[in-house]
Amino acid sequence: MPFPQEIFPVAGVKIGVANTGIQKGSQYDLTVFQLTPDACVAGVFTRNHFQAAPVQVCLSHLKSTYPIQALVINTGNANSGTGFEGIQKALTTCSELGKLLRMPAQSVLPFSTGVILEPLPIKRLVVGLPKAIAALDSYGWRHAARAIMTTDTLPKIISKRKTINGQAVTLTGISKGAGMIRPKMATMLAFIATDIKISQPVLNHLIHKVSEVSFNRITVDGDSSTNDSFIIIATGKSGVSVNSVNDPCYAFVLRSLQEAAVELAKKIVRDAEGATKFITIRVVEAAKSHEALSIAYSIAHSPLVKVAFFASDPNLGRILCAVGCANIKNLKIENIYLWMNGTLVIAKGARNPVYKELDGQHIMQQKEIEICIALGRGQVSETIYTCDLSHEYISINSSYRS
Amino acid sequence: MPFPQEIFPVAGVKIGVANTGIQKGSQYDLTVFQLTPDACVAGVFTRNHFQAAPVQVCLSHLKSTYPIQALVINTGNANSGTGFEGIQKALTTCSELGKLLRMPAQSVLPFSTGVILEPLPIKRLVVGLPKAIAALDSYGWRHAARAIMTTDTLPKIISKRKTINGQAVTLTGISKGAGMIRPKMATMLAFIATDIKISQPVLNHLIHKVSEVSFNRITVDGDSSTNDSFIIIATGKSGVSVNSVNDPCYAFVLRSLQEAAVELAKKIVRDAEGATKFITIRVVEAAKSHEALSIAYSIAHSPLVKVAFFASDPNLGRILCAVGCANIKNLKIENIYLWMNGTLVIAKGARNPVYKELDGQHIMQQKEIEICIALGRGQVSETIYTCDLSHEYISINSSYRS
Repeated sequence: MPFPQEIFPVAGVKIGVANTGIQKGSQYDLTVFQLTPDACVAGVFTRNHFQAAPVQVCLSHLKSTYPIQALVINTGNANSGTGFEGIQKALTTCSELGKLLRMPAQSVLPFSTGVILEPLPIKRLVVGLPKAIAALDSYGWRHAARAIMTTDTLPKIISKRKTINGQAVTLTGISKGAGMIRPKMATMLAFIATDIKISQPVLNHLIHKVSEVSFNRITVDGDSSTNDSFIIIATGKSGVSVNSVNDPCYAFVLRSLQEAAVELAKKIVRDAEGATKFITIRVVEAAKSHEALSIAYSIAHSPLVKVAFFASDPNLGRILCAVGCANIKNLKIENIYLWMNGTLVIAKGARNPVYKELDGQHIMQQKEIEICIALGRGQVSETIYTCDLSHEYISINSSYRS
Repeated sequence: MPFPQEIFPVAGVKIGVANTGIQKGSQYDLTVFQLTPDACVAGVFTRNHFQAAPVQVCLSHLKSTYPIQALVINTGNANSGTGFEGIQKALTTCSELGKLLRMPAQSVLPFSTGVILEPLPIKRLVVGLPKAIAALDSYGWRHAARAIMTTDTLPKIISKRKTINGQAVTLTGISKGAGMIRPKMATMLAFIATDIKISQPVLNHLIHKVSEVSFNRITVDGDSSTNDSFIIIATGKSGVSVNSVNDPCYAFVLRSLQEAAVELAKKIVRDAEGATKFITIRVVEAAKSHEALSIAYSIAHSPLVKVAFFASDPNLGRILCAVGCANIKNLKIENIYLWMNGTLVIAKGARNPVYKELDGQHIMQQKEIEICIALGRGQVSETIYTCDLSHEYISINSSYRS
């Protein structure tokens, strides 16, 4: 049931897809978004030093004075590590789409995802553009959710209709990603559109508040992609508007966007390459956010912990070892408590005397596991989402390019 | 051919092993070293916050005024995450061995390796001590190399006889470890003995210089064990002595110990759980050591890079992605060059125009691969050793405790 729920179109957004053959197979691999000219758009992007060519072009176009009126996304090739030639191809993509839609190249944001370090087949992409434009439709979201997939096994889509002050608003979004996932400032690819009117300064502020609790809190394998991009589009077609952070609707809009983004982010972890378990790691009683995250990621990235989850083996010493590996100054192990799905496993830094191996086995067999670690150092808590490491992850990534 | 070479005993060191049943199976799992009373001993230990009980006791005994005269090592149980009870058991181990060998408990260093967070079966260990003592022999090194193994498939042993100023000296050592390997200050377990006379201050200095280029430069899976320990024993039974870093023999001794330690460290990587490839990562032209290491470990810990090596797939974008993931300020990608086994793959931060996929495929099929990355930022270089990530790693760690 990839699409259990209703998908609401967002007034001011039309989407069309096409098959160019850039990605092997017969699936759609090219997506075009056309936006109302008065939409506001904000984006956050990978912090990987090797920013892919389309990311560099996005950053430049978002800084320009031209309003963003279209997005174009190809899969099958990341146009990354491709040097100056790659930049030229990303610019060509924008100018060709701009000609067809009668807008300047700077009004187009390009996105690519797929294999890194190989030349983008630009001719195939350009040939596909008119086909995608011919398919433009406000109900194109479901097709787009499929057309941006690479190793994903499921399309990832969310759609919400809410009411505030008697006014209906819509949020609809899609994301993709299953491997090379540990977004540092954004995600693989995610796009959320809403018909709420949000001023550009507020949207620029909101996108960071939203990504901090969603796409910046997931990890599959600790690798930040060269192409991570997260975009919010506010078309302003509903009766609701937010012009400053003091606006009475601000909290509602922030919460609605965070809710949508967390759902899309969790969908990436649930569809992670080879994953069989969904793991939530909560670190509480930390002195600072960075130390809570450091411990959470140390657990989430430990191959031994991930394999123990895969094997349903309550080998809890591995979690304890990963906590100790995080580089936290003056961590007092005698203050550490650890629960799994509510069962106290580690008390005062050692095995809880009443913990039974059988209870651990029962918990490890669940599909959803929450680890909660209390540090006894302060009031800060952080939550991240990750998955196990299976044979299937290795099989998928052994044959990804073949 | 686990033991292709001759193993030279070190005058002043006797070793005995026994089977206690702590580790499942019928192999030896208890090792006792008896040292000449005038030996000098130095050790470095894990930086994991959860230091195992034996590590805490080692640190205390090394600080005491009693000379170290014996080591005792059990496998099958790490005595880690075991709280105050674990400390008491490690102390009992020392006092029981001390009684049998007529030395104070403080003259004994205890080591444990195996499953974390489970109680050490101290009675079995104590029952095994007289058997190991009865077996004490200066030719016990080969037995000890086997008796300290856990998931290791091969014993790891080196032995060198060298001559300086017409005097013969001997260095013999053993190590163990195959998973949970990314030593931060030491290794899993490694013991090197020499008959060179080395003063305690010089030995304390030397052990850091030696571990920095050997056990602190290997990684299998990025997890630092709670039990990592590296010990150097200098019995002083040869005619060669070093009393200060200005001694004419100092450079020879440092080089000899580093050579022995690097060999033992590489043996751990070659026997890494499930490994099929041995990977050397050299980062050159860095401004500082920590940035070279940060990039090297970012590559070595990327599951996607490790799986590409396993699959013999020249998916070089993954290496470039991992370089960009390392958190280096102002890294200029246009200055980056990357070679694999001498073939230039990435030039000026993008794919080398004359690089051919076929060449990459040929290189990736080798069992030994060296990646060299030039950053164009300075004169510092660092080298680390790692391995690929295979299905076998997941199988081994899925069933480790069963």
